[in-house]
Amino acid sequence: MRDFTKDHRWLSMNTATVRKQGDLLEIIDACARHGIGAISPWRDQVAHVGLEAAVRTVKAHGMKLSGYCRGGMFPHGADQAQAMRDDNRRAVDEAKALDAPCLVLVVGGLPQYSRPGSPASRDLGAARTQVVDGIAELLDYARKVGMPLAIEPLHPMYAADRACVNTMRHALDICDALDPGKTGALGVAVDMYHVWWDPELLAQIKRAGKSRLHAFHVCDWLVPTNHLLEDRGMMGDGVIDIRAARAAVEAQGFDGFSEVEIFSQNWWAQPMDTVLETCIERHKSVV
Amino acid sequence: MRDFTKDHRWLSMNTATVRKQGDLLEIIDACARHGIGAISPWRDQVAHVGLEAAVRTVKAHGMKLSGYCRGGMFPHGADQAQAMRDDNRRAVDEAKALDAPCLVLVVGGLPQYSRPGSPASRDLGAARTQVVDGIAELLDYARKVGMPLAIEPLHPMYAADRACVNTMRHALDICDALDPGKTGALGVAVDMYHVWWDPELLAQIKRAGKSRLHAFHVCDWLVPTNHLLEDRGMMGDGVIDIRAARAAVEAQGFDGFSEVEIFSQNWWAQPMDTVLETCIERHKSVV
Repeated sequence: MRDFTKDHRWLSMNTATVRKQGDLLEIIDACARHGIGAISPWRDQVAHVGLEAAVRTVKAHGMKLSGYCRGGMFPHGADQAQAMRDDNRRAVDEAKALDAPCLVLVVGGLPQYSRPGSPASRDLGAARTQVVDGIAELLDYARKVGMPLAIEPLHPMYAADRACVNTMRHALDICDALDPGKTGALGVAVDMYHVWWDPELLAQIKRAGKSRLHAFHVCDWLVPTNHLLEDRGMMGDGVIDIRAARAAVEAQGFDGFSEVEIFSQNWWAQPMDTVLETCIERHKSVV
Repeated sequence: MRDFTKDHRWLSMNTATVRKQGDLLEIIDACARHGIGAISPWRDQVAHVGLEAAVRTVKAHGMKLSGYCRGGMFPHGADQAQAMRDDNRRAVDEAKALDAPCLVLVVGGLPQYSRPGSPASRDLGAARTQVVDGIAELLDYARKVGMPLAIEPLHPMYAADRACVNTMRHALDICDALDPGKTGALGVAVDMYHVWWDPELLAQIKRAGKSRLHAFHVCDWLVPTNHLLEDRGMMGDGVIDIRAARAAVEAQGFDGFSEVEIFSQNWWAQPMDTVLETCIERHKSVV
């Protein structure tokens, strides 16, 4: 297991963590100033400053990416099919332009939430079928472009509106079905916030193996949690045994970044430098 | 599958649904007035009016129980061991006095939340071991008394503080380990709020079979959900396909009550009669 206590060379900042404090170019500047060598940006943040400016600034700082957020939201009504397909292909192209190691997929929940305007449904099974079909189709395109896809299982509390793939087991079943050869074209993003509770977590990390462990995201689960979406905790402030999980992914050979992704009204209200400094400190002491 | 559209003979009210509108005796009176023939009371509600008065009022109305809430909260520090054991045995005794068909077990999360005063821990695996040990010990007692135990898998968002058994699969693994003969002494309470998202739900209901399906609880999952604990929805107001799940439990031979359990600041603010009338209407039209 790598020693994180002495420096933060393996720290990556998911740029949503400080999205309220500045635009993407300002976030990249701040990360560089703090010696942070990697980021994982969101599409809306890239769009806001323009893809070319984002690529230029990333390159100018020698910044690496640990992922690109995000493709997905596959369940859809018939009228949304073409837009869903085009949108996801653009996400792959943007990830490639930014030289991301993978495009993270938040697969979507019921169609009315994944692609607004779609007919309302309570059929989660049908949504899951559309997810598998959607990934299969996007995977063909992503293979040609050379962009690995990473399915991110989301916490079950997001099953209706954000992602109906909620466990590592389910995500890996999809990987087995669509990429049985374990080529690396399809894998998972292991975000501790979503999977920490799962009694099968360590077994499924082992099942995934290095070829399917595309990303490792950290934050913490607070007790109490006061908001379903925007009350994630800083590493060390909650109940997740992050180090045990990092040991498990590294035992499989994972040697990528530890990406901090915190959606939090509390941390969004802090100065950017405070958040980055705290992330660095906790990366060393807790992750 | 039973026809619920014509009457509400199979409706049970979990008394927490109207806990802010009256005490247990008032709730029983109101249920009887609305032709509701079963309840599932909580221990604190029973304690508030006294066990004898509760038993007397239940009998006077010919009211049945669909369960008794609740035993559990097994993870504990050494100083809390005896209190945990005594507390759970008292819960079994109360359930017996009230002639409940089962004692529902909310198994507890990390020890500092399950039994306050216990040392803080992030070791969910150790908590799960304490849960299995605690159920095993209580089961010996419950068998002697003749009170079936029902493990209720809780939504993963409660893994830290309320229950570290979060899937039907996990609950049934425990049943297999502790009651391999499927005697009926140990089973599960299937609460749709907690398990609706699980892609294995229908398969695990089949695995459970009649001998382990001790209770069936309904409400709905709202989008958005604004509070982790107190924003459950009335059946029909959310995204859960309740009828598909009822079909699955009845296909296994389950012929018990459909118990409405809604923790909701919204419904607690309504008059008791309004809540009961709405439950009856939705029981017929949605469940």
